[in-house]
Amino acid sequence: MNIALDMMGGDYAPLEAVKGIALFVDGADKAVQLTLIGDQHAVTDLLNEHQVPLSNITIVHSEQVIGMHEHPTKALKEKPQSSISIGFQLLASGKVDAFISAGNTGAMMVGALFTIKAIDGVSRPTIGAYMPRENGTLGLLLDAGINADCKPENLVQFGVLGSLYAEHILGIPNPKVGLVNVGEEEGKGNLLAKETYGLLKENKHINFIGNIEGRDILIDKADVMVCEGFTGNVLLKMAESVYNIVQRRGIHDEHFDRFNFEVYGGVPVLGVAKPVIIGHGISHAVAFKNMIMTAERMIEKELMQKMVEVFAEQKALQ
Amino acid sequence: MNIALDMMGGDYAPLEAVKGIALFVDGADKAVQLTLIGDQHAVTDLLNEHQVPLSNITIVHSEQVIGMHEHPTKALKEKPQSSISIGFQLLASGKVDAFISAGNTGAMMVGALFTIKAIDGVSRPTIGAYMPRENGTLGLLLDAGINADCKPENLVQFGVLGSLYAEHILGIPNPKVGLVNVGEEEGKGNLLAKETYGLLKENKHINFIGNIEGRDILIDKADVMVCEGFTGNVLLKMAESVYNIVQRRGIHDEHFDRFNFEVYGGVPVLGVAKPVIIGHGISHAVAFKNMIMTAERMIEKELMQKMVEVFAEQKALQ
Repeated sequence: MNIALDMMGGDYAPLEAVKGIALFVDGADKAVQLTLIGDQHAVTDLLNEHQVPLSNITIVHSEQVIGMHEHPTKALKEKPQSSISIGFQLLASGKVDAFISAGNTGAMMVGALFTIKAIDGVSRPTIGAYMPRENGTLGLLLDAGINADCKPENLVQFGVLGSLYAEHILGIPNPKVGLVNVGEEEGKGNLLAKETYGLLKENKHINFIGNIEGRDILIDKADVMVCEGFTGNVLLKMAESVYNIVQRRGIHDEHFDRFNFEVYGGVPVLGVAKPVIIGHGISHAVAFKNMIMTAERMIEKELMQKMVEVFAEQKALQ
Repeated sequence: MNIALDMMGGDYAPLEAVKGIALFVDGADKAVQLTLIGDQHAVTDLLNEHQVPLSNITIVHSEQVIGMHEHPTKALKEKPQSSISIGFQLLASGKVDAFISAGNTGAMMVGALFTIKAIDGVSRPTIGAYMPRENGTLGLLLDAGINADCKPENLVQFGVLGSLYAEHILGIPNPKVGLVNVGEEEGKGNLLAKETYGLLKENKHINFIGNIEGRDILIDKADVMVCEGFTGNVLLKMAESVYNIVQRRGIHDEHFDRFNFEVYGGVPVLGVAKPVIIGHGISHAVAFKNMIMTAERMIEKELMQKMVEVFAEQKALQ
């Protein structure tokens, strides 16, 4: 398998990406080829400096960089030689099997949606966020902010996509899917949640456990937690801020250390036809390593194929 | 002034209410009369047991109790001699100036909306929740769950009501009002937030500071944080759960101790014509004391009158 990495994306590019690769290569499966897209000289120098063996690495030179605050569509059009544009060209043409970037999130989303496209039957691809639980596992909250306004069908699809991801990538058998809501009982909630409940309940592809509340997000009541991206985003950012408060208060605690969302890197865009992972701009070495490992697992487990099959089945049932 | 208290509401009734009264009376302004509604014998015995001086206390006997899980409208209709029904009768007729209960939330809301009624111009009364900040002050998040689906106008009214409450009851001069959203820039958000932004911006009665994100809820970026009740409820419950995690982890920290939402008692129903405070079912003594003090301050500061004036002015401007 061949995983492409945008070396120019993120606040600490390309240094932290190189350090992440060093961590990954150290003891990694030699079956993984890495395609590094970026400034050839800078990247080569850093790889040498960090003594990264070059046997499984190909560097693809890119002349341009899309800045963190550039307009996504415009930048992709005007910078065909940017690392992000080249990454999507390589992924679309099948020359690589996954593409990872900690660069401009908007450009990555536009590239994923328009160059790679959604899986047949998926109306709104989504990005989730990991939620650390005290038992050491991770839950998946989705949507985490890409889709601020949603219809009930969208939330159901998030549940199906998240469920497949949790099972095959996070290794949770028969993951419990919960609907984020204001109360436990069926019939609670806003119009969206009320309508979504019934659809989740009758969906055969997920293990729906009912409503979960705000207090359940940080525990292991549900493995996959579904909501529209507005609620998901404010919840994620509140959880992130708890880590900051804990740090400021000088509290050292193993569990709260896992609220350092930087280490997780990015969660993949779920619902597009090929593995695309968008990292936090502030991604450090461990985050890059984790993103490469996630991409590896997605390819290994044939996650995309499994998603295609489930959505084809759903379509056939309608 | 005369403040009525439902002695039969809450999980620990009437004991914790009596203990709360004992705390309040100890060193309180003698101008406050308390009207305690509940089982006369039980309440009298407990007052004596806790050596509460009876000089400023009147007990009103109630034959019935509305249970925590009874259907609100039905219970109010079928139990006119319940402590909650009597409380609202006393408040509506002007025999008391405020009514506090930690009982059935639904019955309290129905009583507030239909017996006391909304202030002229307020389309949706709201309940907020306090958010503890590291500088020792409290922010106010509203709506905290009563109004799961809202229109932009509702959110603006929450901002106006919350602003008056923060200024006069929390003692924050010219409180900063923020719109809970997924990004800082104007134009971000779901349809509701986008529409609300413009209305908040042009409102003359509030000090609107723009969007705030999930990470800003637990800091002092805004004093009044406005959102619909779905988002507000899940945020509140996540914040509450942080306290539980901190407790389970055995972390002792002054700031996180203030995440014990039990101590705040209840935030008043804002937008109804008279002071009505609904406590948490799990309210303990300190919560009851704090609710009485809040009611006292609302009467003292003539908060309702100030709200009436602002909404009359808003109406005149239209």
